Amino acid sequence: MRIPKIVILGAGYGGLITAVRLQKMVGVNEAEIVLVNKNDYHYETTWLHEASAGTLHHDRVRYDVDSVIDRHKIEFVQGTVVEVNKEEKKVILEQGEVTYDYLVIALGAEPETFGIKGLKEFAFGITNINSARQLREHIEYQFATYNFEEEKKDERLTIVVGGAGFTGIEFLGELSNRIPELCKEYDVDFNKVRVICVEAAPTVLPGFDPELVNYAVATLERRGVEFMIGTAIKECTPEGIIVAKGENELLEIKAGTVVWAAGVRGHSVIEKSGFEAMRGRVKVQPDLRVPGFNDIFIIGDCSLIINEEINRPYPPTAQIAMQQGEVAARNIVALVRGKEEMESFVPDIKGTVCSLGEDDAIGVVYGKKLTGGKASFMKKVIDNRALFMVGGAGLVLKKGKFNVL
Amino acid sequence: MRIPKIVILGAGYGGLITAVRLQKMVGVNEAEIVLVNKNDYHYETTWLHEASAGTLHHDRVRYDVDSVIDRHKIEFVQGTVVEVNKEEKKVILEQGEVTYDYLVIALGAEPETFGIKGLKEFAFGITNINSARQLREHIEYQFATYNFEEEKKDERLTIVVGGAGFTGIEFLGELSNRIPELCKEYDVDFNKVRVICVEAAPTVLPGFDPELVNYAVATLERRGVEFMIGTAIKECTPEGIIVAKGENELLEIKAGTVVWAAGVRGHSVIEKSGFEAMRGRVKVQPDLRVPGFNDIFIIGDCSLIINEEINRPYPPTAQIAMQQGEVAARNIVALVRGKEEMESFVPDIKGTVCSLGEDDAIGVVYGKKLTGGKASFMKKVIDNRALFMVGGAGLVLKKGKFNVL
Repeated sequence: MRIPKIVILGAGYGGLITAVRLQKMVGVNEAEIVLVNKNDYHYETTWLHEASAGTLHHDRVRYDVDSVIDRHKIEFVQGTVVEVNKEEKKVILEQGEVTYDYLVIALGAEPETFGIKGLKEFAFGITNINSARQLREHIEYQFATYNFEEEKKDERLTIVVGGAGFTGIEFLGELSNRIPELCKEYDVDFNKVRVICVEAAPTVLPGFDPELVNYAVATLERRGVEFMIGTAIKECTPEGIIVAKGENELLEIKAGTVVWAAGVRGHSVIEKSGFEAMRGRVKVQPDLRVPGFNDIFIIGDCSLIINEEINRPYPPTAQIAMQQGEVAARNIVALVRGKEEMESFVPDIKGTVCSLGEDDAIGVVYGKKLTGGKASFMKKVIDNRALFMVGGAGLVLKKGKFNVL
Repeated sequence: MRIPKIVILGAGYGGLITAVRLQKMVGVNEAEIVLVNKNDYHYETTWLHEASAGTLHHDRVRYDVDSVIDRHKIEFVQGTVVEVNKEEKKVILEQGEVTYDYLVIALGAEPETFGIKGLKEFAFGITNINSARQLREHIEYQFATYNFEEEKKDERLTIVVGGAGFTGIEFLGELSNRIPELCKEYDVDFNKVRVICVEAAPTVLPGFDPELVNYAVATLERRGVEFMIGTAIKECTPEGIIVAKGENELLEIKAGTVVWAAGVRGHSVIEKSGFEAMRGRVKVQPDLRVPGFNDIFIIGDCSLIINEEINRPYPPTAQIAMQQGEVAARNIVALVRGKEEMESFVPDIKGTVCSLGEDDAIGVVYGKKLTGGKASFMKKVIDNRALFMVGGAGLVLKKGKFNVL
């Protein structure tokens, strides 16, 4: 008798939680489980700003998928997903095909450049391990090159960060701590360095409490970060960016490094596979299945869930992806066991903390506003909690953050 | 009464030894001493291959000039020498002028590219602190970029080293130890990396004992280095190099990094100041003064001394520069004290050791051939001796190399 085959695409927060929950709940004779991921490691997307700035080594930000899955229960396929063929119930990989009875799409996000010219070609991203370490090395190379050249080019020491959202601000927090170290390493005058945050929206960290936003801006400005708020990037060039200043005026900012941290969208495989989506995100049913496809779950950054209170989508976060993974796993177990009733996903937002570097942060946790050391402590608790949920205390000990208060 | 003014140009091996010897021998009322150097630090030119490969941090390779000179006795001027005006007895700096009664020119070497097209523009050098850390970062950036790009460019992982002389081989020794670390750091397959040494001469390390040369080549080949001997680089391009293969055939080698380590010449200030010179090196008198100029000493890489035994110039080495500094200092003291008789410089070559990385080397010390750990030990003794001569035991403790055998 053939047992059903569960295929999980992606070993990010959502996919990995689904996998480790399923391996506990499903017997080997009950279902076959396949986990597909591009790399043989999982990385902490929410820690990438640290690896990108060079304040935390990228090996601290990733761990082998093998270290948290049970290979007797889960078959791991290292492969890149090209497309999902919903009709034939199979996944096309660059390296072959995988058929499924139940599918969990947890492929995560991609950068959204909103069609701004040159961003894809010339701006760096905080997207994955490869882009993080390349960005770290690019910045270091600019500093290393500065004194090497007889004719000094100060623009080498200018770093533009596009976006004052969560990723942008967390990256600025790390970067502004890293700059003095880089100045020392390469004998560069700190006053020659410029870090400019350009944000099209009228405020930093939209949606955050204004008092906390002011704290964040003041902290970063004290470390030398310049903010250009309400300023849209019109174009990115090999030399820097062009921004709109007022109605008609354009301004060029020369910069050796441009980082785009202003938006993500769902994975392009979503559209390529013919799912109805908004910027790569599919509005899923309360049970996390795709309307019309009872065998396909979409969770994490590729899913869209409406926050009924404000009638707007929840932002794509690790917190939600992991909670969805738990629900998806339980619903699949029910399906495998022939049950009809599905559990509905209800987000439980415990808090949001935005890091401002090693020992500073702002956030709201259980409805309480926090800044400074306390917020930074809570950030580390949250980071360690993600590890704990996937790999238990062992993974927290191996990869956790303990340099607190 | 005016006391004579001694000006030393350069705080390399020769200049710094001259300065520290003079500050011991000359009383403050006897002469004024001025030391001019481009940077406020001295760097160990003979250790730069380590900083360039990234196996030793560049701060281990330099120390503040201030830490070894007595500012009560020596005035330190941080400045870049443009020209020596021998007639008016003054030195033109980018930042002003300095007059002298006695001058010591110890400005060191510059890379010699023999007019090969593109080398100046596209090849990296192992020349000073700035170029060393830029080369280190450039190589690291190539590795960091490799996996970042969707379409892999294997040539990013090809490093061409032009020159199989002392610097080239020592750099290859460090680099071949560093490559496995870089592969691990950036998830790069070791087999994709190519390190190619291109040498126009018919042998590696010309002048060295053939048995030792064979040991060096075999060691480096075992670590993956490819040798192209008797092969001249015709051109360096942004994409790599073009070499002559046989009589008429040209071969392109694509490489993300080209390092030129095949020759040095004396400082260009020598020619600019109208001294009679061969590739920037002045054939000095036995007392180290310039023929026709009783007030100007030239020591180190800008001086040319003939080895009478083989009727060829001694190669420019730290060993000779330091020994010359001792003699120059004594001769200047004699001149200041109105004595006519000058000491002649006689090189005392104690040995030559060529490093092949952390714990391997080849060399001849006091006429004895050494390889492996023993040679490597002697290399560290030599490196520490240079520190001792300038700054005594204190400097050795601070900057010395102790990870021996």
